[in-house]
This record gives sequence, C-alpha cells and structure tokens, in this order.
Amino acid sequence: MKDWEKNIRIVEPYVPGEQPNFPEMIKLNTNENPYPPSPRVQKAKEELSIDILRLYPDPTSNLLVEELANYYGRKKEQVFVGVGSDDVLSVAFLTFLNSKKPILFPDITYSFYSVWADLYRIPYERPAVDENFQINKEDYYKENGGIIFANPNAPTSISVDLEFIEDILEHNQDVIVIVDEAYIDFGGISANSLIDRYENLLVVQTFSKSRSMAGMRIGFAMGNERLIKAMNDVKYSINSYTMNQPSLYLGVEAIKDEDYFRENINKIIFTRENTKNSLEKLGFDVLDSKTNFLFISHSQYKAEDIFAELRENKIFVRHFNLPRISNYLRVTVGTDAEMECFIRSIEEFLLKRA
Amino acid sequence: MKDWEKNIRIVEPYVPGEQPNFPEMIKLNTNENPYPPSPRVQKAKEELSIDILRLYPDPTSNLLVEELANYYGRKKEQVFVGVGSDDVLSVAFLTFLNSKKPILFPDITYSFYSVWADLYRIPYERPAVDENFQINKEDYYKENGGIIFANPNAPTSISVDLEFIEDILEHNQDVIVIVDEAYIDFGGISANSLIDRYENLLVVQTFSKSRSMAGMRIGFAMGNERLIKAMNDVKYSINSYTMNQPSLYLGVEAIKDEDYFRENINKIIFTRENTKNSLEKLGFDVLDSKTNFLFISHSQYKAEDIFAELRENKIFVRHFNLPRISNYLRVTVGTDAEMECFIRSIEEFLLKRA
Repeated sequence: MKDWEKNIRIVEPYVPGEQPNFPEMIKLNTNENPYPPSPRVQKAKEELSIDILRLYPDPTSNLLVEELANYYGRKKEQVFVGVGSDDVLSVAFLTFLNSKKPILFPDITYSFYSVWADLYRIPYERPAVDENFQINKEDYYKENGGIIFANPNAPTSISVDLEFIEDILEHNQDVIVIVDEAYIDFGGISANSLIDRYENLLVVQTFSKSRSMAGMRIGFAMGNERLIKAMNDVKYSINSYTMNQPSLYLGVEAIKDEDYFRENINKIIFTRENTKNSLEKLGFDVLDSKTNFLFISHSQYKAEDIFAELRENKIFVRHFNLPRISNYLRVTVGTDAEMECFIRSIEEFLLKRA
Repeated sequence: MKDWEKNIRIVEPYVPGEQPNFPEMIKLNTNENPYPPSPRVQKAKEELSIDILRLYPDPTSNLLVEELANYYGRKKEQVFVGVGSDDVLSVAFLTFLNSKKPILFPDITYSFYSVWADLYRIPYERPAVDENFQINKEDYYKENGGIIFANPNAPTSISVDLEFIEDILEHNQDVIVIVDEAYIDFGGISANSLIDRYENLLVVQTFSKSRSMAGMRIGFAMGNERLIKAMNDVKYSINSYTMNQPSLYLGVEAIKDEDYFRENINKIIFTRENTKNSLEKLGFDVLDSKTNFLFISHSQYKAEDIFAELRENKIFVRHFNLPRISNYLRVTVGTDAEMECFIRSIEEFLLKRA
C-alpha cells in the first residue's frame, strides 16, 4: 500500500442490484413500478424550460416540500426532501445516530442499514426476526443508540400495525426511531399519524415505488421540526443544492395527481393478489405482502434453480444469497401480462421437474 | 435538551447564498452562466421519454462517465460523477481525508471546505494567502493529512499555473491533493494533464458554470483508477443511484456540443474583460480573473455601501462579511446588457457620492 492510500476510507463496497437490459426482458428484480408516472408529469416535462437549468435550484426545495406538507397534513418545517430515500436515510444516519451504543435493526431487512452504519462507523446489533420473519418487539426494549426498521419490511413484504410501532416508541423515547416506509402505499398503515405525539419519530418515504419515479431520485422524511431542522443543517453542510430543477417541477406534479396514484396502486394490489393466488396453487409459500413485490419459496424446489430457469426465459427476479432467506425469491409485481409470463415460466419449470 | 437530542450531530449550519427572485432583477450573485444550455440539451429534454422515469437510473452513470472520459482523454475508470461538484467534493472528503493530521487549504477560498471538514470531524489548518491573495506554496510543504485548493481560487478569481500545482504535488506525494477546478474553463489551465504522473491527484470540475447547468446538479472528478474506485465504493455505500435520468441524458448532450461551449465561454471572457476595463476606469481594483466573476474593491467607497446601492437597483452581487475580504464584492459576469446596467448603476453611485 502506498502512503497516499493509507487514509482512504475502506468500505465493504455495496454492489448495486443487477440492472439487466435486454429487449423483451421482464424486469421484476428491483421493485420498480410497471406503469409510467402520471400524465401530469409528462406535461410538466414538456413545459419545463431549459433556460432555468442554468440557475441553481431552490436549496430549500420549497415547491416540493410545500406540496408534500400539504398532502400529508404536515407543516413545511416537518418535511425534508432528498435524492431518493437512500439519500434521506443516509443523512438521517449521519445526523441522528452518533451514540456509542449500538443502533438496532432486524437481521433480515433492507441491506443498506448495515452499509450506512459501517460507512459512518456506527455500532449496531441485529436482533433476529422469528421463523415467520416477524419482528419481536421485545428485542427493541434494551438500551440502544437508535432504531430503524422498514414497514413493510423488505425483502419479506410483511407489515406491522400502528400498535406495534407505538409500543416500540413507548419503550424508546430517548433515541431516534426511524420508520422506513418505502412500500407503505401498497397496503400498510403509515406512522405519519404518530408524529405529533412522538417527537423522536422520523418517517421516511419515496417516489420510487408507488409514484413510478425511481429514475427521478426523490425521497422525503417527515418528523417534528427539530428533527427536520437537524437534517437540513447536515444536508446544507454536504450539498446545498441536491434536488435538480426537473426533480422539483416533476415531483410536484406526481403528488398533485391523486386519482392516477390511487388507480396505479389499486392495479398493482389487484395483480399482486392474483399472482399470490396462482403461486399458492403451484405449491409456493407466499408471505402476506403489503408491498409491490412478493417473497416466495417452494418446499420442493430450490430458489436458485427457479431463479436460473426464469433468467433463461429473460425474466429477472431477485435472489439473496444470504443466511435464512437463500431459499426465497423476491418478485416485483409487474403488469398483468408480465405476471402471466412469469407464472407460465414457473409452470413450465414445475412440469419439467415433475 | 431532551434525551433523544443528545446524539444529534451538531453542525454550524451552512447558509446557502441568497436566491432572490424578482421580476427584472439582475442576478450576479451566484456565478451562474447567463446563457442557457446548448440547444442539444433542449432537444434531449424534448426526446426524453417519461416512461424511463419509472426505472432506476444506471448506478454507474455509464453514459455520462464514458462521454466525459472520451472528452478529457481519460479511461472510464478514471472518472467519477456526482450531484454537482459539492457532492463530488463531499464524497472526496469522506473517502480520502481520514488522517489525524490536519488537512490544508487557504484561509480565503471556497467556504465549503471548512464546512465538510467540520461535518466529518476532519482537523484542518488554513495557511493565509498573501496580501495579493496569492497562495504561498511553501505553506504546503509541512506534514499534513491532505490538501485541497481551488484553481482558479474563489472568491478571488485568480489562478495558479501548472508549475505551481506540480510543486505542491512534488512536496506531497504521501497524501491526496485535490484541485477544485469549478471555474477552470474560463481561462485557467487544468491539472488533468498531471493525472498520469501523480496518482495522488484528484481533479474536480462541474457543469454548473461553463456548461450552464447549475440547475441539473452535475459534477465530476478525474484521477487514477484507485482513487476513483475508492470514491465509487463510498458513493455506492451512501446512495447507489445519485444521478437521475434527466441529468444523465441531458448531461451527455452538453458535452457533445463543443462549438456552443466554446462560443459561450468566449462571450463570457469578452464581457468579463470589458467589464474589468470599465471598472478600472471608475477607480476599482479588479483582480486578474480566470473565472466567470470579478473580485473588486474601491479605495474610496465601502463594498457594503456599493452592495446596498446595487441591491436598491435590483442588481444582486455577493458580499462576504469575512476577515480580509469584507471590502470586496464578487460580481458574476452576466450578459453584456446586464453588465452595462451594472456599470451604469455603479456610475450613478459614484456621481451621487462625488
């Protein structure tokens, strides 16, 4: 190692999920929405003047913050926006998780929590979820430096109710509790309603799933003014202008089109339940999903074999080669047509093996 | 202070520069380019399909990285892109500046260097530039944890030559040396040509000034493969998908239009030199700018009085209420028409005071 390399921060490099790009592939591996954004977004794109691209965007992202505050019944001072919920969560880790005590999150959850903790040198413990992938709330009663969990959880797809979240908050009033609600719009109940009662609660959401805008990188957090101010102080100390002009102007329009949003979600939920049904008939164990994906396993066939067969047919799903979940597949809910292809491919696999 | 507030990271909140928004104002306060981006960017915006917004962008930003590598005669593995050069520099600080020895940068320079150092708990020292705002290279011969300087420097507008940079590199081969070239295209000489000889050199540039795209948030770094890989490892550990789809597709087109780029820069340099000339005739001391702004002071009148008068006329420039430069104004080079208004307003001020 050369001298100049000695002070480079060594991180376990996170490997972004595969982004295959074949004609006619079916992409069910990164939980993107199969439908395009609202037509209002299309219109905003057309009307966006490139003359404003020469100007710095509003550092407060006021247009978008105000729209979100209004939509979720919050004050402007209670909303933070960032470059996808990954950016929002990363800023939250850097801002709030500075205790020497370990932070807590489930052993099976979004893989980035341990990545941020490692990056920022935050100690952590990961209490195991039970054999049904349920979080034991008692595991979160001990002393800690902060708590984060996803609701619904990923990649398991299952959700907890508000009572569960309140119980965790009741037992942890001296640390920040972050609820990552990336998938909340597909059937879960948001903890947003608890913000007025728990000033240590931060709720994080994203435009990437339910609003069909993964490619725009827009995430947000809601919490009491003190939390949001602390996050903005850190954000302004990293990069004052994170949200580019298109993300502000197009993001606002996505929020404004409530009818499209509801219709989009209902279609996905309908397709999800149909797909679940079909998979169960084929002998799969399918967890009760409140997300836009299904977490599935088969008692007779190995997940990696099914994964490989689907891949042969240019159907891409996600397989995590990790302890406890290596025999599961995470399958994004696509269009009805895509899910029919997916089911047909599974049926062929089963026929060949029967 | 409540218990849950105890582990919040306390930072001196950086206050983003004023973003006034009046009809018919003249905005010369944030060094934006007065001309819109290339017509090719307009065309790319029109052709951008909103269908791709539902998909995550390519985490490697390959399209943009490849175009930049090709343009600057680098390999793909030698180019890193981020959300404006602030994001790029912040990642560089987090990645490279982890020594216990202080990093070094001039006392008068871009205000964010100390902000990032404070945020990431990096010790630093700020050797004073001389009375002509020149950096004393001998100040950078001592032991340190890394070096960063802007060339041309901000807000002073003056540049150093390659010999100067090489001297600093020769004396600092065991730490990372970052050259922040936000303004390089307006007359400075890039250190890009030194990258093959100094593997500890990182060169950072931006689309915000010379490419008229402050509103798109695109910055980049060039350096040897080992440096760029280390930055990408950290970046992927913060947020795998930082560059949204519009920034990738529109960014590429800005690079492709070399004629427009050159024409734009030449216009600004021409206007800059004319404005400098006029200001000198009015008794101003004007530093020799290699940027798209002028750093000026008047022996008889206080900078803050001139600032206030200009503001009255809806002409916004930048005044830093900081030691050593409080009697200076930083004036962005706008269009010829804008600079004529600016000069006229100064003339009126001088007449009133005479």
